[in-house]
Order: sequence, then C-alpha cells, then structure tokens
Amino acid sequence: MTAATFELPIAVFDSGVGGLTVLHECLVSLPQEDFVYLGDTARFPYGLRSPEELRAFAFELADLLLEHGAKLLVIACNSATAAALPALREHLHGRVGVVGVVGPESRLAAQVTRSGRVGLLATPATVESGAYDRSLAAAAPSATLTSVAAPALAPLIQAGGEVDEHVVVEVERLCDPLRAARVDTVILGCTHYPLVRPMLQRELGRGVEIVSSGAAIAEEVHAQLAARGLDRPDGRRGSYRFLCSGDPEAFRRLGTRFLQLSLGEVCHVDVAHGEPVAAPLAGRAAA
Amino acid sequence: MTAATFELPIAVFDSGVGGLTVLHECLVSLPQEDFVYLGDTARFPYGLRSPEELRAFAFELADLLLEHGAKLLVIACNSATAAALPALREHLHGRVGVVGVVGPESRLAAQVTRSGRVGLLATPATVESGAYDRSLAAAAPSATLTSVAAPALAPLIQAGGEVDEHVVVEVERLCDPLRAARVDTVILGCTHYPLVRPMLQRELGRGVEIVSSGAAIAEEVHAQLAARGLDRPDGRRGSYRFLCSGDPEAFRRLGTRFLQLSLGEVCHVDVAHGEPVAAPLAGRAAA
Repeated sequence: MTAATFELPIAVFDSGVGGLTVLHECLVSLPQEDFVYLGDTARFPYGLRSPEELRAFAFELADLLLEHGAKLLVIACNSATAAALPALREHLHGRVGVVGVVGPESRLAAQVTRSGRVGLLATPATVESGAYDRSLAAAAPSATLTSVAAPALAPLIQAGGEVDEHVVVEVERLCDPLRAARVDTVILGCTHYPLVRPMLQRELGRGVEIVSSGAAIAEEVHAQLAARGLDRPDGRRGSYRFLCSGDPEAFRRLGTRFLQLSLGEVCHVDVAHGEPVAAPLAGRAAA
Repeated sequence: MTAATFELPIAVFDSGVGGLTVLHECLVSLPQEDFVYLGDTARFPYGLRSPEELRAFAFELADLLLEHGAKLLVIACNSATAAALPALREHLHGRVGVVGVVGPESRLAAQVTRSGRVGLLATPATVESGAYDRSLAAAAPSATLTSVAAPALAPLIQAGGEVDEHVVVEVERLCDPLRAARVDTVILGCTHYPLVRPMLQRELGRGVEIVSSGAAIAEEVHAQLAARGLDRPDGRRGSYRFLCSGDPEAFRRLGTRFLQLSLGEVCHVDVAHGEPVAAPLAGRAAA
C-alpha cells in the first residue's frame, strides 16, 4: 500500500450498524472528507467474543480497508476498541493513525463536567472492562464515574421499528441510578444509544450534558488529520460509501435510522477469520 | 372555564404532525409539565387556506382545548400563527397565554448571529407573508435576512419513508443561496424541517447555527409560565397525550418520526369549521 495522502478516505469499521451514529457525526463535522464504512454484520454482535477473536477481526478489517487506501482508521465499536486498539496500532506499524472510542468521549466528559460526577451507560462487557474508569481517571483524576450496565438497551433499540414502550421503561429504569448519583454528565458508551438520546435527555433533564462517541470521535478525527497534515480543505462535498459482510439490503434498511442521512448503495464484502479475503473489494465497491 | 392553574396541561395545536417537533423540544426541556397536542389532520395542509379560514380554525381548536383546561396555548404551525396569532389573543381575552412560532425563533436568531447575516428556510406562503422579515427587524434592526422558499421540502419529508435521494437533492439546492449569502445562522421556518437538520448541518457546515421553532418555543413557553407563576416544580414526570381530527392510526404511524419519543394512544376529535364541536372530548381523551 502507498503512504497515506490527504486525498484518501477515512475508513470506519464496526460490528454492524451502531457505528453509523459515529459516522453521522463525522459526516456533519467533516463534510469535505470522503468516508468508507465497513459493518461486519456477518459476525455481529461482537459483545460476547473473546479478545483474541476481536483482535483477529480488527486486523482483518483494517487490512481489508487499507488495501484499498485510507488515511485514518476509526474503530466505531466499544468491544473492538477495548480488545484491539493497542494491538492494532502495533500491527499497522504507524502506517496510518487509528482512532477508537472510549478515550475521546472520556476526555470530552472530563472537559464538560462541572461537578466531577460523571455517569456511564454501556453494555455489561464494556462496564466490566473498566476501560472508561481508566480513561476518565487519566483525563480527570478527581472525577467519579457511576457506571450503569444496560444489557437490554442496544438489542431493544436495534429490534424496535420505532420507539416502543419497552425502550421507554428500560430508559427510565437505567436513569434512576444516574439521577441518584446526581451526575451532571453522562457518557453514552455504546454507539446504539444516540437513537434514544431525546428520551434520555428528557429523563435526565436539560442540566445533564450527554456525551456520545460520535461527537467526541469527530473532534478526535479532525485533530488527528490536522496534526498529520492530512485534512482536506473546506468547500468540497465529500462522498461516503458502505461495505458490509452480511446482507446489504438488511444493512441499508436498518442503517438509515442510525445514519440519519441518505444511505445509498451498500456493497457486500467477504470476511473469513484467519483466511485471506477472497473477493476483490475494489470492483464491488465502485458503486 | 376556570382560571388557568399550574396543574393544567400546556395545549399545543398544529395542522398535522409537523408541530410534534415543537412538542418534542418542549417535552425534553420541560419534562415536569403535562401536554396535550391536537393535530388537525382532517384539514391538513393549512398552507393554501385563506387567513379568514385559518383564524376560524384556530379559534375552534383553541376553544376545544380550553374547554378541557389548559394553562398555555402553543400554535405550532407557521401558517396558523401568521394568520391568527393576534386575533386569537383577542378572541381569548387574556384568559390564557398564547405562544406562536416566528417571534421566538427570530429572537433566538438575533441572539446567536455574529455577522448579522441570517437565513430563512420556509414555505412560500411563510416567506411571502414577510412575518420573519418583520420580527427579525424588530429583534435585530441591523441584521439582514436571506429567505429561501421551499415549496417541495415539507411534502417530501412527510412522504418519505426514509431519507431519500429526492430530499438530498432538494436540500442541496436550497442551501446554495444560503451559502452564497454567507449566513451564519439559519432559521428553520417550518416545523417539518428538523427532520433534515443533520443533512442541513452537513450542507451548511458546523459553523452555521441552525435555529428551529421547537427550541425557541420551548424557551418561550418556559419564560411565559414562569412570568405567570404557572410552572410546575421540577422532579415530576409529566404526561402527554394526543388528539387528531383525522385518522388516529395514520397520525400515530407518521407522528413517531416527528416526535422522536414514544407516542402512545391517539384519540380522534371531530372538528367542523363554523359549527360547534359535536363530540365531547373529555370522554374520548381519557386514554
């Protein structure tokens, strides 16, 4: 592969459609950049897989994306970030920058909290990993983190054709400990959660700042590109395109709700853990 | 009717589902308040009706809502506000406060613009009425308003099952004159437009502040309640319910996308321009 140049796209990958909320914020913040998004829907969900497996997936997806050129990699998935971020940086030998979740939103939360009482909503695996405790402690040593594990929320959001009563009840239940802890900032530690942000804001009140991965990562992407001299000048309308390892039509149908923008065509790519990618990506992705 | 007390709901009415974006902001900002929303879907759209007709509709809907008690009335519709706001205030003889669109978002735009170059996206009828020109001139005499009439955008948004290519093309086209005028603030002068806010923000850039009726009205409602000593104390979860003059199931299906919150039950009410409301609301609305 050639060295990264500013004309290459930013590559984003995730286990499925959740990372589209991260892509959404990047598209709104950086309209002049090109993006390519890969959803590994064939192996979704990542939440129950071993760290070794997740590292192998991350290497495979990163290699697949870099083969076709990318100037920056974004891991838009909490599980993959927690398991693979440092290993992936090592695997790539600095050929390209890698941005993951967890760190950016912890730093943003550290900036916006006034009381130092920060809340976290995340999957049980993410809460148990302690990744947010560590990164918030690094960014704001005096802050305290109240973590709430939400096993059912992401599946309910993904399954729900619309905001239904099960989601409402679950959101109310999850907000109780956050209110009790009198947090003034809540980190949405899963890329599915921005879809219920209005409901969370109503439950928590306008006085509570909600920090999502998307907004934090968009800032980080911008900073990293600028630091490397890889950012595109303004005044251009960038493109974005989609790859997924599962059913493209299902991805498109489900994805629009997460992207909140027109989704366009989705191309299938084969993934095979430990095996080379069989199908040439370039031909199929030239949509 | 008895005098307004702080325990009564806030009543919001509109020609259809568009005003639900206004209700959305009110629900997020004022979770402790109760709301009742009336969508006059049987007579939608209002855009082509005469001022006399719109005044008659507004009187009828206001009387219907006040009959069952409301401490504040919100007209969440540009056409109805432009045609009926002063007349409705007169009709009600100060029994209850009335908040309409146009004024609040013009005042908010006047606050947030730095350059004084403000843009407006609205229906042709709203642009032609000159209502925003007058209210922005009153709020910020040195500001200039670049108005873009968008005849197709609201129908495209309402018709679209998801964000489709027609909407994208229309949004791009509408943003051209706003970019050319180098506005730093854009008023969304139609309650349908918040559904394409992400797309608009991407087209206009993060540097442009987008002002919607919902956020502006939520602030105005709060200020008016506080001024009258009618606001509910914090720490309570308010309720909200829906009435419509057309098909309740169609309202529910379409409305969820605009409300971005769980919609729940919708009750039918009869409206008959110029005739008394035949059906007792209380019995039906007790859902």
